[in-house]
Amino acid sequence: MPNGFSSELLHNLDMDEQNLIKRRMNVLGSSYKLMYHHPVEFVRGDGMYLYDAAGVPYLDCYNNVVSVGHCNARVAEAVARQISTLNTHTRYLHPAILDYAERLLATFPAPLKRVMFACTGSEAVDLALRIAFSHTGADGVIISEFAYHGTTMTASSVSPSLGQSVPLGQHVRTVRAPLAYREEVADVGLRLARDVEEAIDDLERHGIRFAAFLADSIFSSDGLASDPAGFLQPVIEVVHRRGGLYIADEVQPGFCRTGDAFWGFQRHHIVPDIVVMGKPMGNGMPISACVTAPDFLEQFSQCRYFNTFDGNPVSIAAAAAVLSELQERDLLKNCRTVGALLKGKLQALQKKYDCIGDIRGTGLYWSIEFVKDQKTKEPDAALTLAAVNALREAHILVSTFGLYENCMKLRPLLIMEPQHVDQFADSLDCVLERLTVQQHAVY
Amino acid sequence: MPNGFSSELLHNLDMDEQNLIKRRMNVLGSSYKLMYHHPVEFVRGDGMYLYDAAGVPYLDCYNNVVSVGHCNARVAEAVARQISTLNTHTRYLHPAILDYAERLLATFPAPLKRVMFACTGSEAVDLALRIAFSHTGADGVIISEFAYHGTTMTASSVSPSLGQSVPLGQHVRTVRAPLAYREEVADVGLRLARDVEEAIDDLERHGIRFAAFLADSIFSSDGLASDPAGFLQPVIEVVHRRGGLYIADEVQPGFCRTGDAFWGFQRHHIVPDIVVMGKPMGNGMPISACVTAPDFLEQFSQCRYFNTFDGNPVSIAAAAAVLSELQERDLLKNCRTVGALLKGKLQALQKKYDCIGDIRGTGLYWSIEFVKDQKTKEPDAALTLAAVNALREAHILVSTFGLYENCMKLRPLLIMEPQHVDQFADSLDCVLERLTVQQHAVY
Repeated sequence: MPNGFSSELLHNLDMDEQNLIKRRMNVLGSSYKLMYHHPVEFVRGDGMYLYDAAGVPYLDCYNNVVSVGHCNARVAEAVARQISTLNTHTRYLHPAILDYAERLLATFPAPLKRVMFACTGSEAVDLALRIAFSHTGADGVIISEFAYHGTTMTASSVSPSLGQSVPLGQHVRTVRAPLAYREEVADVGLRLARDVEEAIDDLERHGIRFAAFLADSIFSSDGLASDPAGFLQPVIEVVHRRGGLYIADEVQPGFCRTGDAFWGFQRHHIVPDIVVMGKPMGNGMPISACVTAPDFLEQFSQCRYFNTFDGNPVSIAAAAAVLSELQERDLLKNCRTVGALLKGKLQALQKKYDCIGDIRGTGLYWSIEFVKDQKTKEPDAALTLAAVNALREAHILVSTFGLYENCMKLRPLLIMEPQHVDQFADSLDCVLERLTVQQHAVY
Repeated sequence: MPNGFSSELLHNLDMDEQNLIKRRMNVLGSSYKLMYHHPVEFVRGDGMYLYDAAGVPYLDCYNNVVSVGHCNARVAEAVARQISTLNTHTRYLHPAILDYAERLLATFPAPLKRVMFACTGSEAVDLALRIAFSHTGADGVIISEFAYHGTTMTASSVSPSLGQSVPLGQHVRTVRAPLAYREEVADVGLRLARDVEEAIDDLERHGIRFAAFLADSIFSSDGLASDPAGFLQPVIEVVHRRGGLYIADEVQPGFCRTGDAFWGFQRHHIVPDIVVMGKPMGNGMPISACVTAPDFLEQFSQCRYFNTFDGNPVSIAAAAAVLSELQERDLLKNCRTVGALLKGKLQALQKKYDCIGDIRGTGLYWSIEFVKDQKTKEPDAALTLAAVNALREAHILVSTFGLYENCMKLRPLLIMEPQHVDQFADSLDCVLERLTVQQHAVY
């Protein structure tokens, strides 16, 4: 993890922090990583901010899970009420899960009219693949080069961004994400469609039948590929012509994040075959889902399937409250308008700083790609990491991502307001001014 | 699912129930199943009881998830408080996860001193297998003949009880569970160990290296194999001698359920290599975990691993409250003493009814095996199903399980009291009296 804490930095921290970290190392599995050179510890959250023990507010431009706000009152009340009333499972009748399912499915075009719940995005991706494999009788999967789709054995086998230690499945092929900034072709959609077709050919050459193309419509793990909206149309045409299913991983772009539409795939005017959602669905309560067409479930419904916690009344209460917040406060519109302000600020910074190679994104998901200079486009991962850590010291939360680890990831909460955009942009300006002066001093 | 509702029975229900079920069929994936010929709908829960809309209490002898009681006040308050205060993730420092991890690990013998959290038992089983595969560099797995370990692609590939439609992994072998009632050998432990060794031989004959034996120490999906405690000792000796890991799936027997010890494996005086837990851990909040030794995580920690919701402060608050309830109310002792009462009642019923072939279990997990008669031991799945549905009409919740679908599954909440045992036993007596009279009338 590029933006991770290393225990070599332990001596820089105060004793309380050192003790907490040592306790972590003594009880948690060694895979657990902390963010930042100076890890953060929060004691409460409220709206756009997390607060440390000294009461210092940190502007949250990173945690897309809590998209309707930290400790959102409507969600908290719904959970508190339900957990004191009833918490069971889907093998008993309960109208709340049906009310929610009907409201959720109303956000989807036909024929996406069936939902299956799970607890995490990983589980939902895993379930989507099980459904796709059972429907097609095939298991070849195509993903993007630096995709992340989850942590189960199967989800991790389609998550190359987890690194060399996690093997891709033998039935998995990757294609380059359509990041226009580093493309040499005019039409990224056609290039991607061609690559997908070649990957299908390669699967078949190895005796593996093509089952599914699995992608996040903004390729968020690859460093963000948002434009031009519509570039996925040639891909879905190839996928369907070759007999596969198109699985849209909406864990990142879903629930209004892109500002253009409730679901990321809608920006491209395509209709996927299976849609996976998670993270912000319950504002932090573990709930996720697969939505698909009844036809694609026919084969899978021969299997016994039950997930103890899936669709439990407490998680459903949280998800229903989130949906109400999104719809009644029109956070899609807020995301679009505040996102446009943010875009303007980022473009102004790009004009000022030669180290900002590219600004791309949509709604409230943005990538700032740092380079040695705008002409060579040589990635600058060190500067990216320094900027992220400097922003943390300025009490603003963001992180890094992308194939070259040189992109700053911005995913502020959907309740962001113009003054938060100013706070972020001013802080980034200060940070870059300082860091680029230091850089020039080094050269 | 043997105890499932079939839509052919729809016309027996009242209009409100029919409408709810039709709405379910219109929005939920067709894999979703309801229990009972007459599905239940509850509006609230309290302690040992669930209540329907008319206020009728149903004695819960089935839902082991809510083991410290429906709508347990301590859990509900902990969740309500935390969700209004802070909900983040494990990449920020948070002392509560460490406090809980230390308390949880204190219940384990050395060297089981590291924990990794997840959200569901399926995820934890999946993670345990990833850890075992990375440590051993092998992927051969041995499970029991009718095991259930979860719903992810990988967990379902080691869950033969899901039926013929869900393929077992090519690297998976099964052994017969040690159900003494149907064994022909004197020492079930030695028989099981011999079968495991043969399965390892068979894996190796097919070029598959042995990675792990994965089992629930009471073989709950197979129909319950509780005695004699200690029968797993010869198995773990074979597993270790052949270079594999022993993964204890404690989702069912863990957290005091067996009455003998906090963890089911402790009844056998063995120390597994990886322990998986889930269901009752958060009394219905989605939280699960893997506990293992630091050594077994060394290889796996090369992988990036992060689960958005795992170990989040709200789930941890629920789990901490559950642990306090178990320990401060000494529910292990309650489970043992009330379980002994239940055992006595069941044995008395067995003397009265020739259709009860076997009574087995420990603590508050019991299996009543129904047969045509005690001499032939011929399984009677029809009677089992009739009894479960009759108990539902008598407002008592249980279900069926086992290889022959002829076992009644009893998993009452751990807060069960003597009067609940009486209520259950009296109701079962009435039900069996009626059903066996009907049976004889048929013959």
